Formats: sequence, C-alpha cells, structure tokens
Amino acid sequence: MIADTDARFMALALSLGARGQGRTWPNPAVGCVIVNGDRIVGRGWTAPGGRPHAEPVALAQAGAAARGATAYVSLEPCSHHGQTPPCAKALVAAGVARVVTALEDPDPRVAGRGHAMLRAAGIEVATGVLEGAARRAHRGFLLNRTQGRPALTLKLASSFDGRIATATGESRWITGPEARRAVHAMRARHDAVMVGGGTARADDPDLTVRDLGVAHQPVRVVCTRRLDLPLDGRLARGADSVPLWLCHGADADPARVAAWTARGAHLIEVAVAPGGQLDPLAMLRALGAAGLTRVFCEGGGSLAASLLSAGLVDDLVGFTAGLALGAEGWPALGALGLGRLAEAPRFRLVETRAIGADVLHVWERD
Amino acid sequence: MIADTDARFMALALSLGARGQGRTWPNPAVGCVIVNGDRIVGRGWTAPGGRPHAEPVALAQAGAAARGATAYVSLEPCSHHGQTPPCAKALVAAGVARVVTALEDPDPRVAGRGHAMLRAAGIEVATGVLEGAARRAHRGFLLNRTQGRPALTLKLASSFDGRIATATGESRWITGPEARRAVHAMRARHDAVMVGGGTARADDPDLTVRDLGVAHQPVRVVCTRRLDLPLDGRLARGADSVPLWLCHGADADPARVAAWTARGAHLIEVAVAPGGQLDPLAMLRALGAAGLTRVFCEGGGSLAASLLSAGLVDDLVGFTAGLALGAEGWPALGALGLGRLAEAPRFRLVETRAIGADVLHVWERD
Repeated sequence: MIADTDARFMALALSLGARGQGRTWPNPAVGCVIVNGDRIVGRGWTAPGGRPHAEPVALAQAGAAARGATAYVSLEPCSHHGQTPPCAKALVAAGVARVVTALEDPDPRVAGRGHAMLRAAGIEVATGVLEGAARRAHRGFLLNRTQGRPALTLKLASSFDGRIATATGESRWITGPEARRAVHAMRARHDAVMVGGGTARADDPDLTVRDLGVAHQPVRVVCTRRLDLPLDGRLARGADSVPLWLCHGADADPARVAAWTARGAHLIEVAVAPGGQLDPLAMLRALGAAGLTRVFCEGGGSLAASLLSAGLVDDLVGFTAGLALGAEGWPALGALGLGRLAEAPRFRLVETRAIGADVLHVWERD
Repeated sequence: MIADTDARFMALALSLGARGQGRTWPNPAVGCVIVNGDRIVGRGWTAPGGRPHAEPVALAQAGAAARGATAYVSLEPCSHHGQTPPCAKALVAAGVARVVTALEDPDPRVAGRGHAMLRAAGIEVATGVLEGAARRAHRGFLLNRTQGRPALTLKLASSFDGRIATATGESRWITGPEARRAVHAMRARHDAVMVGGGTARADDPDLTVRDLGVAHQPVRVVCTRRLDLPLDGRLARGADSVPLWLCHGADADPARVAAWTARGAHLIEVAVAPGGQLDPLAMLRALGAAGLTRVFCEGGGSLAASLLSAGLVDDLVGFTAGLALGAEGWPALGALGLGRLAEAPRFRLVETRAIGADVLHVWERD
C-alpha cells in the first residue's frame, strides 16, 4: 500500500520533470511533489535554464504545509552550493518528514551526500522508487556525468523499404504532416537537434521547432568536417536568432571558420576518425562538455551509420511511410561494415503505433 | 436495429468464410449463417477444395429449422449447376424466408442470377451488408474473375534500415520466432507462396507451413526465368509431396525443363518483359488461369520491385526488426526506376502492432 502510493506520486514527479526536458541543460530535468496526508500541497519542476530546481519551487507552493509532509523527487536532491543553495538543506529547513527519491545523483558533488544530509537531519529517506523509469528519464544527464557525453536519439523517417529520398534527392514529403508534427515535438524535448553536412546541403533545413507554440528552440548542431555548407542557406540566415553549433575537423578552411564565426555560429573542432568522418565519440564528448544532455539526430545516412557503428545510439525513433522508393533511393543508413549478422547493432522495441498515415516505432538500446 | 443484427450475423458469416482461405481455390471462401428467430441454427463455410459450398453445409445443420429462417451469406449464392447443384435452389428448397448477402458474385455464370432466383421464389433478399469487408475477404476471387489474376500480398521482413541480408547474404534470422510463426500462419491463409529464383538459391527454403498443426500446404511458386535452381535443394526434394510450380521463360534450358518435370514440378512458361525479368502481369495471369486466388510473395528484392512497379501488390505486410544492417546489406526492394517522389507506389496503413521483438505493419493498396 505504501509502496503503491510512493510509486504513484513518483510517477507524477517524473511526469512533471519531463516538462523541463530539452530546456534545463546542463542540469537534469527533475520533478518534485510534496504530499501532506493524502493531499498534494506542492508541485515543481526544474525551470528552463536549470534553475530554480524542482524542490524549492514545490516547497514554495506548499508553504507551511510542507511541515511533516513527504517530498517525492525524481533525483537525489543536491547537497552543494552552486548558483542556488542546496535543495537537501531547503527540504530540511521546510520541516519535511520523509523524502522519497528515484535515484542517486552520480554527480561527484552529490553522489549520496544529498541523501546523507537529509538522514542526518532526522528525515526518513527512501530511494530507488521507479528507478528504471527515472534512469530512462535522466539518461542524458546520467550519461553526461558518467561518460561525458549526451544521450543520443536517432530518428529515421523512411519509406517502407528504408529510403529517405529518391535517386534525385527528392525527400519532401515521405512521411505525413502528423509524423512531421511529432518530430517537432520530439525536437522540443531535446537540448539539441543534429544533422550531418550532406543533409544540411541537400535539404537546406531550419532545424527549428515550429507550430507547437513553443518559444524555446533547441541548439542546432551540424557535423561538417570541412564546413562546406552554403553561407546563404537557412541555417546561416538564422544563426543569430537560434544557436547554431558546427562540429568540424582541424582541416576546415580557416576562411570558412572565420565566415561562420562572423555569422554567429559556435565552432567546435573535433578529431577526424580513420575513416575520414568526424570521430563520433569525440564529437559527442565535445557536445557533452558544452553541457548538452539530450541530442536528437535526424541523419543523414552517413552520420547515422557512424553513430550506430560506434555504439552511441541510445534511442531509435523510426517513422515508416506507406510508399516504396526502391533500391536506387538514398538509404536511411550508410554502410556499417558488418561482417556477420550477429554483429548488427540491436535495439529493443518500446512502442509502436500509427501516427497519421505512417507507423511510429520507438526502440531502445538492447 | 434490423441493420445492426444483419451486420452482426454477416460479420460471423465472414469470419466463418475466412476459415477456408487458402484452401478453397479456385472457389471463393464463403461463410453462411442460418438464423431462425434469435437462434443460430446453422453455420457453414466452403470446404477445402471448394465444395461443398457454405450454404448446403449450414442448411444441413439447420435441418427443418431452416424453414422461415434468414440465411446470411458472404457472397451471392451460386445459380448454376457445377459439380454441385446451385445453392440458390437449395435455399429455396429449404424454405428460407430471407437471404442477406454481402456482395454480388461477378462470375458471369452468377452475376445477379442467384439473387434473382431467390426473389423469383418469393424470398426476401437484402444485399450489400458489410460489402467493404466482403470485398476485402473475397478480393482474390474477385480479382481472378474480373482481371484474371490472384490477389497478391507482398511480405517484406527487414532490419529497420530496410535490409533483408548482410553483404555476405546472411539472413537467418533477422526477425524473431514470433514473427516467423506469424508468417507461417499467413502462408496457410494463401493459396500459394511465391519467391524469386535468387531467394530460392540463397536461402534454400522449404516454403511450407510448419508448426501450426496445419495439414494443408499452399502451392509453392518460384519465378525463375532460366530455371537455374539447384536440383538437389529442399524445393526439389519436396516436389513430390507439396506442389511446386516453376514460372520460367521460353529460353530456359530444355534439359532443365525435363529435369524439373521429372521431379514432379509443374512448369509454367511466362513471357519475358523488356527488362529481362518474367513479365509480372503475365505471370500472375497464368497463376490466375491455374485457379489461384491468393498469392503470398516473400521476395526477394527483384521480384518484389517488379510486382510493385507493375502495380500488382494489393496488400503489403512488413516486419521490422530492431537491428541495423547498413547500406551494404541486401535491399528489401530492388530498383523501381522512379523519376519523382509523386510516382512512388503508395499504401494505406491497416494495422500496426508489436509481434514478439519486431514490429508488424500491414498496408493496403491506396
């Protein structure tokens, strides 16, 4: 009975936390619920930009009702003075009687100290409630803290034979408006949207979130070893209003580096792998060091193959449209260099459903 | 109220009829329900081999209770003496008061005469109940009668990037056991299973229905212009027990024609298209003339592309597995020669769901 109640309120805390996804980086998107008796007296989630944290927001809403209450937090409360006082201290000061968390924060500045601070003040602490769901929700933050890279979602939208464009490069539109709208909602829940240089040249995309009433725009990242993108394209024109980060190799033309910097792009030099493409792990580490926790990659085929080969794809989102383009169309994935079927990167199915006229299928690293 | 009741009993008749799918060719798989008052007094469906028809089976079960009853039949009862007396006459003789059908039989020997025979005997006749569902259920029979070809279901089972084998041809197994079991169930509901010669050589398949407790085996059809299949493969070894039909061109080596005939295969000569492959429409017409109404094509990529290009795919069944094989893998579809995206063959989504670890998606000609 207690356990069921704990799980129910933790699920609410997680869903509140999810509201911040894509907007709290480099901080985690945490949710907090304060419950006094049977009554929810406070709700909070990490604000855009990463502060205030979820706990002080929920405590402020609860006011005096926080005394003797239980606080549900989707991640261990912080214990260190950063730009805000520690949340563990705020929970103590508010007179909370019990704190339930989903997960210990692996950040070395916390790493159990938040829980210890609460216990030292005589607060009852339970952890590990809905831990699996919390690990998924905070995957980007956890990967950033433990491996120095963001979580990566790869989106592939293709014909049912796995093609993303005709032989002549025509790709608008393979999937329908509902699928495209879902993609915009997915972009908004990530810190950054990423494509390869070939896609940027072929599609001249905006890579922005549109038509969802969302003010926030994720960072736009283009992986382009030689910085050979048109300086008069949509990405260049929008670089002063929506962040544009360009990952490039050391051998990019310095004149292009200067031109893109003048246009307001943020340039990130990345090592080149033996195959000639930007090293995918080095690139993600650079993005992680810049604070990103959740990156949404939309192709093209070469970048997707490079990330898959390196084992860096955590979530895979497929849209399959009801049309055939044939073997002469552009493949959704470039070459992987597999020797045997047993070496193929594998994913576990999370969900499948119709979305408009297309099929959505969501997979997770196996 | 009457309409709802009619639709409910017609749905039952359709589901009874579906039991015969794959086993009644060249006849349609019809279902019949006899209802007296509120009571179902007879159920029947076309027997394997196509006779007895559904109506006499249901009438025999109903016995005297057929008098004054309503008969629901998923297709217009036949009016001609074939190997059995006309079903319309049997319904009249049994004293049925009302007959509800889904669809007129386009067979020129029937084509409204069944309904007319019933009305002439003073029986109330209502038609068009669940007509859409009946058109789908009887699509193979209707296409055979109106266009001289069977309905064609194309199955593609691929990695999520649309590949059916690694560069070295390894394809076992991309999808999981649940998906493969579903494929066997689909085979059993078709008159014939069809593959191209390349797949027959690469996979050495049985193309039989296994592990479902099904005694009936669909005809196996291989499209192989030059008849260059191994004479010691599984298909050759099983040709005496399960029908094996080989569609070939006029230029096939006569020694091979003789060798395959000696092994018990049924040889069908088909015109060769300008592209060098067997002409897909000529091939389906030959299969239709041989009585087939429902053909299940399992690839490979060239045959699938040839059928899609010719606009001959009525239903498309996709299985998508959670693994990536990369651009060097074998494509699920060969080249289609499309100029523009607008020319791509399009399909309407009927259903999608998880099946084991894979995604099943079913599409219908748009």
